Amino acid sequence: MKINSILNIFAPKESRFFPLLEETATILDNTATFLLELFTTDQPERSAELVRLIKAEESRGDKTTGKIFKELNNTFITPFDREDITGLADVMDDAIDSMHRAANKVALFAPKSLPQSTAQMAEIIQQAAVEIKAAVLELSNLQKNDRDIRKHTKKIKHLEEAADTVYERGTSQLFRTETDAIELVKLKEIIQELEKSANTMNGVGKALKMLIIKYS
Amino acid sequence: MKINSILNIFAPKESRFFPLLEETATILDNTATFLLELFTTDQPERSAELVRLIKAEESRGDKTTGKIFKELNNTFITPFDREDITGLADVMDDAIDSMHRAANKVALFAPKSLPQSTAQMAEIIQQAAVEIKAAVLELSNLQKNDRDIRKHTKKIKHLEEAADTVYERGTSQLFRTETDAIELVKLKEIIQELEKSANTMNGVGKALKMLIIKYS
Amino acid sequence: MKINSILNIFAPKESRFFPLLEETATILDNTATFLLELFTTDQPERSAELVRLIKAEESRGDKTTGKIFKELNNTFITPFDREDITGLADVMDDAIDSMHRAANKVALFAPKSLPQSTAQMAEIIQQAAVEIKAAVLELSNLQKNDRDIRKHTKKIKHLEEAADTVYERGTSQLFRTETDAIELVKLKEIIQELEKSANTMNGVGKALKMLIIKYS
Repeated sequence: MKINSILNIFAPKESRFFPLLEETATILDNTATFLLELFTTDQPERSAELVRLIKAEESRGDKTTGKIFKELNNTFITPFDREDITGLADVMDDAIDSMHRAANKVALFAPKSLPQSTAQMAEIIQQAAVEIKAAVLELSNLQKNDRDIRKHTKKIKHLEEAADTVYERGTSQLFRTETDAIELVKLKEIIQELEKSANTMNGVGKALKMLIIKYS
Repeated sequence: MKINSILNIFAPKESRFFPLLEETATILDNTATFLLELFTTDQPERSAELVRLIKAEESRGDKTTGKIFKELNNTFITPFDREDITGLADVMDDAIDSMHRAANKVALFAPKSLPQSTAQMAEIIQQAAVEIKAAVLELSNLQKNDRDIRKHTKKIKHLEEAADTVYERGTSQLFRTETDAIELVKLKEIIQELEKSANTMNGVGKALKMLIIKYS
Repeated sequence: MKINSILNIFAPKESRFFPLLEETATILDNTATFLLELFTTDQPERSAELVRLIKAEESRGDKTTGKIFKELNNTFITPFDREDITGLADVMDDAIDSMHRAANKVALFAPKSLPQSTAQMAEIIQQAAVEIKAAVLELSNLQKNDRDIRKHTKKIKHLEEAADTVYERGTSQLFRTETDAIELVKLKEIIQELEKSANTMNGVGKALKMLIIKYS
């Protein structure tokens, strides 16, 4: 154990984890905002720029998650159990990765057009990201904010159910109407990745709910 | 810590986890039974009903898993280490989710016909589910039943190997014979999801085996 | 607790985990070497043999991982925290599984030809496997070798970035040039699985980096 680790014991530990978790939630929210624009813009150059912006957010997310893990290893007193902090950081990272993959598939597959269901799913994902960010910003005062956080997790759950409905309708329609097999493959992949993104958003919601159950 | 948490210390704790794990195993078994019928029925209305029934089981599974996690947070004495209980509940939940996804893909993609390999895989999955349920029902008396449970995990492993063989033969045949690219995409996805289901069944088997190693 | 468990306390425990982790790293390295040959050979019989060899390595990997988990349950003193040992063993197992799936897809889908990007990715994966093996061999003396191990993890990270670039270029080219939808589906799946393999290699790198942060 190094000297700074010993000194760490006496420092107000909580202050380090919350800003890092909040930073991750902000990155998640930014990514979702760019993703929604990607699925609604009709400007090819803006589209290419948005993919780059999302990639940049994803790299930043990786670094922030890395900092959280490093911090955990250098800290004795943590505001929540270690596995709860890594659990939350991990699912937020998964959500960012999934959104990045969805954006990347749009760029790499270059579908001729995007069905409306993709924009609808991106919008639901973005709304879930707003709820996640709001909930994470309240974590540093969990005991006071537990009702508010619970409201956010309920909204996230409802949004995931809405995303499921759009996913099912969109997939079913795609397979009924698309006759170009290559376009069908592209769009199926993109819709499935968006469904995964919505799912991971709900995964973040579940991690947040677990924190309330455990610590409020 | 709330009063009921304190009282919990003196209550016979084991009694809560086993019924919840058994309920999850029953849901898993029901889902597999419906899934097998879905891949063997030739009645479209029954098919649609089975997809609904599987969705209902999946929702019920989510709730039961949620109860297990909640219970863990309110309980001091658990029959196994916490991570072993969550581990088993999680893999059973994964297996139910995967079967639900397989059923959903049949409904959403609406393939013209299903190759025989899909029914064979569904049958293997259903047999594995029977073994899982039997093993989970014996967990509450693990020390007495360890030999029996070990027999079930061995059968689950053999069933997964059988599923692998059917998967490989079915996929290889599909790619050799299917000339309609869109039908090929649908069936490839469905077969792959069934393979995942068989895999997660084996994941449950591994979690059960771990319990015997640790606690018998 | 059985007698041999008690005796275990006094035995020099570390000696058991390192050979098992080294064996897993060797299996991972062998698998990657066979995989690279699979993507570069033009001999169909050798190709079939390589798929069999990879399958055999994967089975061996499963057994070794099983031994590690068993050992953990019978041992009181471990060189690293339990979750760090299972974490490293798990990601190595994931990497071996993913390479096996990539090889299997080549065998089952039987694409007419493989684009150059697949061989390039297989080469990067093989290089990452060499770094992983070298790093794992230095783990038993982590405190002395931490700089060396860190060098390996840095190389693994760079290799993953290189794999990403090849993946993106290869996928984009495939969707621009392949007009046979069935061939496109086959190759898309194979390239995506290789990308996952490269990703899991980086996952091993991250697990190794975590060990240095925690124990050096």
